[in-house]
Amino acid sequence: MPYGYNGKTLRVNLTDETLRTEEPPENWYRTYLGGMGAVAYHLLKEVPRGVDPLSPGNIFIMAPGVISGAPFSGSGRNAVGGLSPLTGGFGEADAGGYWGAELKHAGFDQIIVEGASEKPTWLWIEDGKAEIRDASKLWGLEVAECQDRMREELGDPRAKTALIGPSGENLSRLACVINDLNHVAGRSGTGAIMGSKRLKGVAVRGHNPPELADADRLRELAGRLAKQVRENPSGLSVYGTGAAMDAGAQTGNLPTRNFRDGEFWEASEIDAIAVKNKYRVGMGTCYACAVACKKEVKLETPYKVEARYGGPEYETLGAFGSDCGVSDLAAICKANELCQRYGIDTIGAGTTIAFAMECYEEGIITPEMTGGIDLRFGNAEAMLQTLELMVKREGIGDLLTEGTKRTAEKLGPDAERFAVHVKGQEFPMHEPRLKRALGLGYALSPTGADHQHNVHDTGLRGRAMERLRAFGVLEPVALESLGGEKVRIYKYVSEMRILTNCLAICNFVPWDYNQYVELLNAVTGWDTTLYELAKVAQRTLALAKIINLRSGFTAADDWLPPRMFTPQTSGALSETAVIPEELRHAIDLYYEMMGWDPQGVPRLGTLHELGIAWAEQYLPPASADRLVI
Amino acid sequence: MPYGYNGKTLRVNLTDETLRTEEPPENWYRTYLGGMGAVAYHLLKEVPRGVDPLSPGNIFIMAPGVISGAPFSGSGRNAVGGLSPLTGGFGEADAGGYWGAELKHAGFDQIIVEGASEKPTWLWIEDGKAEIRDASKLWGLEVAECQDRMREELGDPRAKTALIGPSGENLSRLACVINDLNHVAGRSGTGAIMGSKRLKGVAVRGHNPPELADADRLRELAGRLAKQVRENPSGLSVYGTGAAMDAGAQTGNLPTRNFRDGEFWEASEIDAIAVKNKYRVGMGTCYACAVACKKEVKLETPYKVEARYGGPEYETLGAFGSDCGVSDLAAICKANELCQRYGIDTIGAGTTIAFAMECYEEGIITPEMTGGIDLRFGNAEAMLQTLELMVKREGIGDLLTEGTKRTAEKLGPDAERFAVHVKGQEFPMHEPRLKRALGLGYALSPTGADHQHNVHDTGLRGRAMERLRAFGVLEPVALESLGGEKVRIYKYVSEMRILTNCLAICNFVPWDYNQYVELLNAVTGWDTTLYELAKVAQRTLALAKIINLRSGFTAADDWLPPRMFTPQTSGALSETAVIPEELRHAIDLYYEMMGWDPQGVPRLGTLHELGIAWAEQYLPPASADRLVI
Repeated sequence: MPYGYNGKTLRVNLTDETLRTEEPPENWYRTYLGGMGAVAYHLLKEVPRGVDPLSPGNIFIMAPGVISGAPFSGSGRNAVGGLSPLTGGFGEADAGGYWGAELKHAGFDQIIVEGASEKPTWLWIEDGKAEIRDASKLWGLEVAECQDRMREELGDPRAKTALIGPSGENLSRLACVINDLNHVAGRSGTGAIMGSKRLKGVAVRGHNPPELADADRLRELAGRLAKQVRENPSGLSVYGTGAAMDAGAQTGNLPTRNFRDGEFWEASEIDAIAVKNKYRVGMGTCYACAVACKKEVKLETPYKVEARYGGPEYETLGAFGSDCGVSDLAAICKANELCQRYGIDTIGAGTTIAFAMECYEEGIITPEMTGGIDLRFGNAEAMLQTLELMVKREGIGDLLTEGTKRTAEKLGPDAERFAVHVKGQEFPMHEPRLKRALGLGYALSPTGADHQHNVHDTGLRGRAMERLRAFGVLEPVALESLGGEKVRIYKYVSEMRILTNCLAICNFVPWDYNQYVELLNAVTGWDTTLYELAKVAQRTLALAKIINLRSGFTAADDWLPPRMFTPQTSGALSETAVIPEELRHAIDLYYEMMGWDPQGVPRLGTLHELGIAWAEQYLPPASADRLVI
Repeated sequence: MPYGYNGKTLRVNLTDETLRTEEPPENWYRTYLGGMGAVAYHLLKEVPRGVDPLSPGNIFIMAPGVISGAPFSGSGRNAVGGLSPLTGGFGEADAGGYWGAELKHAGFDQIIVEGASEKPTWLWIEDGKAEIRDASKLWGLEVAECQDRMREELGDPRAKTALIGPSGENLSRLACVINDLNHVAGRSGTGAIMGSKRLKGVAVRGHNPPELADADRLRELAGRLAKQVRENPSGLSVYGTGAAMDAGAQTGNLPTRNFRDGEFWEASEIDAIAVKNKYRVGMGTCYACAVACKKEVKLETPYKVEARYGGPEYETLGAFGSDCGVSDLAAICKANELCQRYGIDTIGAGTTIAFAMECYEEGIITPEMTGGIDLRFGNAEAMLQTLELMVKREGIGDLLTEGTKRTAEKLGPDAERFAVHVKGQEFPMHEPRLKRALGLGYALSPTGADHQHNVHDTGLRGRAMERLRAFGVLEPVALESLGGEKVRIYKYVSEMRILTNCLAICNFVPWDYNQYVELLNAVTGWDTTLYELAKVAQRTLALAKIINLRSGFTAADDWLPPRMFTPQTSGALSETAVIPEELRHAIDLYYEMMGWDPQGVPRLGTLHELGIAWAEQYLPPASADRLVI
């Protein structure tokens, strides 16, 4: 009997309605860990070249990690993944809450869904048993309603759910998967994969957490962390994400009006402090977590906003706030609630609306196209109306819900000039023109622009730099630099981010890198090292890269959109922007550091060193398609 | 005040007779650790292209590591290095004993000797003070005599010495440096560097070991290891090296008659068991070491052999024994003693004699050239006579003492067919035709064929494989394989070997990889990780590679000599040999794993990731000189 995990994968085929349990050997768990690692492994092996992400040939994976569901802060997460409807390549997103831990307690380490059902279905999993159920009466329901009905049907008010809303059903490429009503796996459009399989959701209930190899040691680790968090509560515990937006606005780091402008005077009206003062009614948390950073807001007027849908994270405050030029916090809270209610990514939806606003102001989108909505920057009501159209695929929303990239392609080259995405994934609320390594990460992340795979240069001080000593980085490095030393730091920090996604544990919990090792050894009884774990991250990145190459991406797609190479119109970054030659050089160095060739293709020796020589068969033929500056 | 090290480098210029203390910053110690890392760093930075290893432009480095001299088993070693008189490239060798620990206790972490004196000199270092002394009366003395006279002159019978013998003075390219009379830094011909500088030796005395960051933790680690060694004494403690020669002979792993033959029936007459039964009078040890693996032999007849020169290691038993076809253990013990007495490498001297024996039997070396010595395989007396000529540079010895490569070049292509060396460094007593990854290592090691930088495939079982889990190697691999998985294992194991040379701690002490981390943290108070330490090894290898490229070596020199591609004439390996295509593929994979290009040149991204971008200036222009199969 293994420690920490169950040894069981639930494989569901919705085409022929079969369920099957697979039992990977222990070394599989140690090699891929779960989470993002499991997504990369299965996606490369099981989805052939040329599959449409919205066809039955795609797979949908839900994967906590080997130590998920053990009693320590940050262990409640899981990854979801498949070929991304948004990018067409490696698709993956992560959510917290309770669902991931519950799946582990229910006897499974991951679920792989194949095929597609003709009629709506859902899955019910309880203590080692799983069944496919009819979702005809759930189809079309908003997320919370759906959870209510499922729990009613099950007679179990504590069943945990991972659901899609109407946006996923409507195959919005921005659709997300929602755990426990307000913990969201937002990026990559994975909700549309569920929608395409007509899988409304997965409810789980488990009473048997996997055994721990060293419960005393884990208790000590978890207790010390909890004590530290209690005694020195960070801004996250007090405010949740988004307390420092005013500072961001002053340094140009708060994306404003579709990343066009550099100043947003009303930042302090929409930040987490304002949320706390005006609308917050509580702070939620995730399984076993001492940090408790999840805002819950409640409004009756001017909009009714239900507290059970949580509250806006920093990304949401930025995407529907400054990036749309909107300073109406109530409208932002409502936009957030609509996104959870309908199951659409707040970042993708907010930034696509911001993009549409710029198109509207530039005359590329006309009032005729919007159905009369005056879609100017700052018009909160227009923003909410447009969002409603997107989640329902009505009017202009039918186009916008395809995401920024497809909208821009439809609108033509004039619009593409300010379409802010990488590989089709819209930008999160962090500014590559300030944070140069972050920009490098947006260009390089396998899911496109993704702040979960990234380094935040502005935070590379104090403890963050001290942690890098684990990798031999001993000297501080200038914020503005995108030289070799910054690339080196980016490599290590991003690998640790990828690692947390493989472990499916939370970045917001202040675990040290070495404590990842200790947690893993305490839970599983292994004798792993930081070296081995960094290799898991490199392995995952190599597999994800090969998936993207197979999907048709080339080195030219590891790049930033045009707007990043021109300054903001005002503020601190009005005279500086990303320098193409510098970015090209940094990417070249990164490829070399990763053991990838100048086309970004992992070298054979790299695959062997990572123990994934089996992936050689999926390597693309040599190509010369690379952006040269 | 740092823990574990002194923060002081003693720099000696023998040309102008100056002494100076340098104080590298803490990050220097953490980046290079000392030992082999320090050698690589200083050699690349300080010795320009084109310097003759035997000219004053070369430097001579003596370097323990940051944790050397702390009280734990294996901490008594130090590296010596410089541009190798034998290979012309990166030269480095390591020795145990007490000298390295004593230097640390005397207040210095390393000594760098520049220039050359006109008259013989020696160095005396005591508790932070150093002086250059006149060695006119010591020049020409055998090693033990020299130590006696130094101690007499100092009035300190406990001064520790690192000395050259007459071979070093005579600039034999096989000359070594001898610590404490019988602990030998044998390879790379570094004794000749001392000779060329007219530096007879360095005596040290120290009473102040650097402070320990966590003495309790170190005591616990050291105590546990000592207990383990006491309770489960390995063959090393009981016999020293070389107990399993008979098994080696049966698998073809005991080099016999210049690596020509595969059977040596008399193996059990010359192994460590025979030594113990016939001539052993004691077992010596090194500073603070519980293993105590150093044989001491004493003979009165047929040869007088002094016990204070120690006894033959496995390498010596093989080089003067089976490799010369000699089964006369007394003669081998005498050969060993002569080597220590005169300061010449037993491996290089023994194998060069074996090579000469084959040349003699082939008629390439004539009785005229040997001065009548009947230099046939198996003629023990002829072997000893030839060795005497080599150490004194007389007759045929004047040529042979230049090493196998130069001798073969002089004798012509017929002889070069069976000259068994890589980059000019003769083979140690391990068989690449059996151990394929070892052969890979002989081809790739920066010092040429060197068993201290290597993996011993035959030992890749049980605990050795378990240790590799630290790097994510989870599956066993076939002995005969030289595929990607073996290359991966080679990479990791050889890096850990290089690491022990940087730390200057002993491979024979059964520390686990993770315990290297614990030792380092306990001694220095750092928070290092196995990841950081593996990077130190990669850094050292990259620097050493660049030194070799600068010295004129190309990828074509990372290769094995012709004999390795044909089977042995008899025994277990009479139908198998290294396959050139397999070796070529393995080397290509290794280059890729290391972030080196197909010419074996470290890529720019690799230098940045290793934090040694400063080394870029030393990279050679692109070259196409590579051995293609």
